[in-house]
Amino acid sequence: MRIEPLKWQDGKLKLLDQTKLPLEEVYLELSRYPQVIEAIKNMRVRGAPAIAVAAVYGLALAAQSVDANSQLEFRKRMKSISKEFAATRPTGHNLFYALKRMEVAIDKGSRIEGIRSSIFEEAGHIAQEVADVDWRVAQSGAELIEDGFTVLTHCNAGALATAGYGTVMGMIGEAYEQGKRIGVFVDETRPLLQGARLTAWELVYAGIPATLITDNMAGHFMKQGKIDCVVVGADRVAANGDVANKIGTYSVAVLARENSVPFYVTVPTSTIDLSLPSGEVIPIEERSSEEVTHIQDSHIAPDGVNVANPAFDVTPTRYLTAIITENGIVREPTEDKIRGLFSG
Amino acid sequence: MRIEPLKWQDGKLKLLDQTKLPLEEVYLELSRYPQVIEAIKNMRVRGAPAIAVAAVYGLALAAQSVDANSQLEFRKRMKSISKEFAATRPTGHNLFYALKRMEVAIDKGSRIEGIRSSIFEEAGHIAQEVADVDWRVAQSGAELIEDGFTVLTHCNAGALATAGYGTVMGMIGEAYEQGKRIGVFVDETRPLLQGARLTAWELVYAGIPATLITDNMAGHFMKQGKIDCVVVGADRVAANGDVANKIGTYSVAVLARENSVPFYVTVPTSTIDLSLPSGEVIPIEERSSEEVTHIQDSHIAPDGVNVANPAFDVTPTRYLTAIITENGIVREPTEDKIRGLFSG
Repeated sequence: MRIEPLKWQDGKLKLLDQTKLPLEEVYLELSRYPQVIEAIKNMRVRGAPAIAVAAVYGLALAAQSVDANSQLEFRKRMKSISKEFAATRPTGHNLFYALKRMEVAIDKGSRIEGIRSSIFEEAGHIAQEVADVDWRVAQSGAELIEDGFTVLTHCNAGALATAGYGTVMGMIGEAYEQGKRIGVFVDETRPLLQGARLTAWELVYAGIPATLITDNMAGHFMKQGKIDCVVVGADRVAANGDVANKIGTYSVAVLARENSVPFYVTVPTSTIDLSLPSGEVIPIEERSSEEVTHIQDSHIAPDGVNVANPAFDVTPTRYLTAIITENGIVREPTEDKIRGLFSG
Repeated sequence: MRIEPLKWQDGKLKLLDQTKLPLEEVYLELSRYPQVIEAIKNMRVRGAPAIAVAAVYGLALAAQSVDANSQLEFRKRMKSISKEFAATRPTGHNLFYALKRMEVAIDKGSRIEGIRSSIFEEAGHIAQEVADVDWRVAQSGAELIEDGFTVLTHCNAGALATAGYGTVMGMIGEAYEQGKRIGVFVDETRPLLQGARLTAWELVYAGIPATLITDNMAGHFMKQGKIDCVVVGADRVAANGDVANKIGTYSVAVLARENSVPFYVTVPTSTIDLSLPSGEVIPIEERSSEEVTHIQDSHIAPDGVNVANPAFDVTPTRYLTAIITENGIVREPTEDKIRGLFSG
């Protein structure tokens, strides 16, 4: 059974509240677009592709309720709501890619009903494409995971993160289905513990042997020769191959290279932002200090201490063994090779 | 005011329960040696030098209560209790160094009262020496922390860890007292959060600007040029300079070298184990899986996931810029230079 973190049902968005996992599986029924904005900001849905899918469904909800006296006013209202979605989280690229497509859809159709249809149709297309693309990414990447391999992953790039099959989890799941005997080491991924809470949960759900570790153990196990490859997702990839992903990814990449462990980044091409020459210009979201000083109900730090909480870091392309996409694998990525993915 | 995690008072051991920090300061009054063993195993007291001090005071408690019909029987009972202390935690070297000295003290003195005196005296000496040695380490190392520096540290090598001034915290405190404008980035240090709970608390207590980060952020800030040096303690240093310290130290060391950030290890010479040729033979303690799957009262992982929980890792000597001891600083450590520390 596939995990479905986001589902359009009877004109509402059914959303699995990821902040409650792994102890509770709570599905929210969202009928108004501001609820979707809240869910994205507070990471009830997270992962760059899943955020994009939530946002396009959020626009579909808005299209149902927004009323206007003219097509012009309707299109204007919808584009303004699209900007509200664009302001939710800054780092992932898929959101902006999807909203750009939705704005084209908003410009299509005649009469308000026609515009609404255009919006619903494009939202459905985008959601379906994510699942199709994940499937192709999984097929493309599974060959890199050999029989007997132990894979290390950081954060969550599973079905929960993409609303499809997952990129990293798609690859791992596909390799497992092919009968390869594999195991997965899961970085817990502080501060919000997406590894411990979400990736571990998805692996247990799929029956794939999983070992949970704290983030600071990954290097130790690489040095001990226990890890055969690292596979992570990404929130945005620059044209030169620099990768913005969950904080800690850079450290994992450096440790992988130091220990001659292949380091793979698995993304749909919609994560690649050709407009950015390098990772240095990717905006990095700073989140609230409470995410560091508190873990769920526990206060773990003294009052009076400062906190830094960048949600992402940037891994320079030189640390990447390959980028895996639905259009194929790019080894030792360069800007030319990456642009080649789009000329298919 | 100095933090005193361990204090001998009226024939009892007053012990600050470090598992309750930073939210509560609870002092336990221990009057029987098995309580000290429990406190060490459950990390109410931790840090290699502080464990050693707790153990020698534990032997002093035992000496008060153990009764015997002969000197021979008394010495035998005391040595058997010493072995119980040796079995509490395997990785730190200071415990074994201190127990060896206590066993020499147990062999001294005539009549049972004389042996008791010898035990009390040696326990007092060892505790006093720890404080003296910390003081000299701090003086020796403070020169490495320049005005304007931001120091990164991992885990806790403060007064709480040594029962003296702290090695790392001694250096940092001394540099700060000298009027240098410094700041400290503190790795939270999962699983048991000694950085967030203990080091951050000590820094706030001392008024030194402290910024708490999750362990996986350290590399990001090094890459951004925000860290001027890394200073960590150690639980055991092999003759060749390989360092066993809290899990995650190896990763910090690799990231420091990758970013040309000096990496300093600060220890009393009693942490150095000349009997071990390299770090590969240092025993690494594996602790319970609950430390990873639970954070205080929160259960953060799904049932059915495996867990690895090595408490320490080994950093090869090639990553060290220098070892700082009470007998001076050894730059680019080699076995010859390290042995030189003991020929003063």
